[in-house]
Parts: sequence; C-alpha cells; structure tokens
Amino acid sequence: MEDIRKIVGRNLREARQAVGLSQEALADQAGIDRTYVSGVERGVRNPTVTIVARLAEALGVRAADLLRE
Amino acid sequence: MEDIRKIVGRNLREARQAVGLSQEALADQAGIDRTYVSGVERGVRNPTVTIVARLAEALGVRAADLLRE
Repeated sequence: MEDIRKIVGRNLREARQAVGLSQEALADQAGIDRTYVSGVERGVRNPTVTIVARLAEALGVRAADLLRE
Repeated sequence: MEDIRKIVGRNLREARQAVGLSQEALADQAGIDRTYVSGVERGVRNPTVTIVARLAEALGVRAADLLRE
C-alpha cells in the first residue's frame, strides 16, 4: 500500500491548487507554519488528525478527503 | 465542527466491533500499544496519519473511512 503521507501530500496539493491558494495563504488560514505545509505536501511530514482537520477546514474539504487513496 | 479525534474514535470502535476484534487483538495486529488504541477510541489521543493507516489496514478498511464525519 502506498505511504499514507504521500497520499495526503498529493491530496493536499490538489485541494490547495483547486482553490487557488498558495502554500503561504493556506498556512496562514490554517494557523500552521508554511514550511510544515510544504513538508506535508512533499510527503515527508506525518501530520496528526487535528492538523489534517485544520488544513481541510481551511480548504473547504472534508478531512477524510485528504486521506483518500 | 465536531472534534476530529472524537470522529476517529467513534469510527475506529465501530470498525473494530464490526469485525469482532478486541482492542487487544487490534493493537497486536496494528503493532500499537493497547492503551493507545483505547485512547484513540475515547477521542483523547491525536494519532498521526501513519497510525491511522496502520489501524485501518489491520481492520481491512481505508484510512479515509476512519476520518469520515
């Protein structure tokens, strides 16, 4: 099975780009450090479910959508 | 919005009971401490996506299913 961190990274980037937000703008809205958002998108961070929920809320998607394979 | 930890806890308990596993058996299969599984189910733990993926795999469900609202 593909590494869930890579799946979350790909889904996050797609959702962010779909709403035309920069990493910086998403980080601001979610109250998360921009370099952390970049790390999640590159699949090198292992976010907790509360971080995933905050990112999803900032993008107007459901948290489950960010883990969809 | 409901706390994602409570959502994950409820989904995890339902998925575990649906396959008739005890917390102990699930913890063994997922290679996670039983008390941690109990904490996730009670919504007092904040698991990372890799932990969620391991629990999902042990239960034969998708990681996204455990975050479904």
